[in-house]
Amino acid sequence: MSTLPSDAPLPTPQRVLSGMRPTGALHLGHYHGALKNWVHLQNEHDCFFFVADWHALTTQTQRPEPGVLEQRVYDMVVDWLAAGIDPERTTLFIQSRIAEHAELFTLLAMSTPSSWLERMPSYKEAVADNRELATYGFLGYPLLQAADILLYKASGVPVGEDQAPHVEVTREVARRFNHLHSPAAPILAEPVAMLTDTSRVAGLDGRKMSKSYGNTIAMRDRPEVVDEKIRTMPTDAQRVRRGDPGEPSRCPVWAFHELYSDNETRDWAAAGCRSAAIGCLDCKQPLIKAIQAQQQPWRERAEELLADPKRVHWIVEVGTERARAVARKTLREVRHALGLSY
Amino acid sequence: MSTLPSDAPLPTPQRVLSGMRPTGALHLGHYHGALKNWVHLQNEHDCFFFVADWHALTTQTQRPEPGVLEQRVYDMVVDWLAAGIDPERTTLFIQSRIAEHAELFTLLAMSTPSSWLERMPSYKEAVADNRELATYGFLGYPLLQAADILLYKASGVPVGEDQAPHVEVTREVARRFNHLHSPAAPILAEPVAMLTDTSRVAGLDGRKMSKSYGNTIAMRDRPEVVDEKIRTMPTDAQRVRRGDPGEPSRCPVWAFHELYSDNETRDWAAAGCRSAAIGCLDCKQPLIKAIQAQQQPWRERAEELLADPKRVHWIVEVGTERARAVARKTLREVRHALGLSY
Ligand code: SF4
Ligand code: SF4
Repeated sequence: MSTLPSDAPLPTPQRVLSGMRPTGALHLGHYHGALKNWVHLQNEHDCFFFVADWHALTTQTQRPEPGVLEQRVYDMVVDWLAAGIDPERTTLFIQSRIAEHAELFTLLAMSTPSSWLERMPSYKEAVADNRELATYGFLGYPLLQAADILLYKASGVPVGEDQAPHVEVTREVARRFNHLHSPAAPILAEPVAMLTDTSRVAGLDGRKMSKSYGNTIAMRDRPEVVDEKIRTMPTDAQRVRRGDPGEPSRCPVWAFHELYSDNETRDWAAAGCRSAAIGCLDCKQPLIKAIQAQQQPWRERAEELLADPKRVHWIVEVGTERARAVARKTLREVRHALGLSY
Repeated sequence: MSTLPSDAPLPTPQRVLSGMRPTGALHLGHYHGALKNWVHLQNEHDCFFFVADWHALTTQTQRPEPGVLEQRVYDMVVDWLAAGIDPERTTLFIQSRIAEHAELFTLLAMSTPSSWLERMPSYKEAVADNRELATYGFLGYPLLQAADILLYKASGVPVGEDQAPHVEVTREVARRFNHLHSPAAPILAEPVAMLTDTSRVAGLDGRKMSKSYGNTIAMRDRPEVVDEKIRTMPTDAQRVRRGDPGEPSRCPVWAFHELYSDNETRDWAAAGCRSAAIGCLDCKQPLIKAIQAQQQPWRERAEELLADPKRVHWIVEVGTERARAVARKTLREVRHALGLSY
């Protein structure tokens, strides 16, 4: 498999593509798990980042309340921009607004063996857990992802280890299409997986930070909310009284120190915990400050954007037009190779 | 299953949809098996007839020579028009020119269990014969067909008995989508199968008329070609000499009498054959005349069309625009129901 570790950038500025499902306002787990990496990538590459709203449908069997999905898209894009995604350099767009994703998906389906999709571990596991997921669309999810990537001839796709097989399938789909329909001059580019450290970000209760656990800090939580959330976080359960010594490795707070504190602060906290020299509220204080400090520019940018709601729509509109122009060009080539160029 | 025999027309003028793969110039088998019925249907209904060029890709693993598919589409549409399809009353279009087919296919995929497609007899049989056909696209072929139909809210779909299960799946797909995403006011219409007699038309050698057997009479074969083809047709193998009596039921020519001759001519031929009162060339003469007479208006219309090649393109262009307007309207409703209406 062709992969690159995240610290080995692609040799030259290349097109990099990544999508995120519209989950609404993002939390620190999203930021550290993906968005932080996106912000860095745009310094090196021609980035295409998109709202994967069709992918959200593959695992959603209930009809969302009217307007809910729209609001989620909006809130998420605001957080992208707040985090520093720069729409001047980077192309932001919405998958469902570009029918070419569906068209390429349909055309690639014709040369893609079902067995390539059936053997994906992500599919087998999910369907074993929940038979309702055994839809044709969910089976085709990696192929729709392949279409997303190949439509823009992306050279690199930042993914976690678990998603690497999907990039591998994308490469096989491209190779097979080129081999069958355009052997002399390959049309579809085989992307490399840019392996990203997506080690889980712990939430307030020590489990993975996730909306469904109610253990998140939102990117745009107000300072007093962050203060309250961290102050009421559980700590090492064996440190019952202020005078009891604790053990950081048993404490959910420690995961935040690992993300947010420098060595000096960490040493202070660990030593103070183990000797009971500091209380848990003391220990939490530098984290509250660090998170609030990180959030401040996000909040400022978001406030600016929210003051003019049309602005975000406009940014998405421009990005979608830019993406569509690239998509159309690829599809013209694909249609031509298939003899569909009338 | 909801079906209607072909002689029980839908109660009021309704939208009827049908597609044909781009096989190039059509032969008498295509005419009697499908096109004749289309010509009748347009007298009663609001007909949408389309070139199913994406469907052709589901079973094609080789790249066509450049321009071949385009020529096939053109030749087939000329034959539709020659046979009397009236572009003023009927909407003619090309599937691949309307990306909405792919978009609806993709969206419907999300709520369609794979098992509905895996159990289709057409899929199971074809894949058992040829493992290369086991692609994701070929598995999804009935779903793409469902999207074709549902996109135009067709009330009726003329099909042969063997395709009836596909209409039934279309109804299930529509029902499930409506149930999940628009229970109060169903968006997608459940079509009925208008059962059509697609009993095989025999070719010059008695087998099914098919290009691959080289036993066809093209709709636009010149009169002298028809003359030659019928005159050299094999007859009852046991009628070796002119004086030997024959038996029509053993003779490929007889199938043509059943299609083209009135009772009187048939009685004359059968009696003359069995008594050796007529020779085989005598027997074939009324058929040559009848086929040539049927073809004459086709040839005249085709010549008119071919004298102005842009005209056919223009007809398809106008039809495609008309179809696209309907497709867009349906898709707006579908997107809205899915919450994708931003
Ligand atoms: S002092 Fe810090 S690390 Fe130790 S238990 Fe309290 S919060 Fe956790
Ligand atoms: S007379 Fe007619 S039906 Fe009899 S063998 Fe000849 S062609 Fe056939």
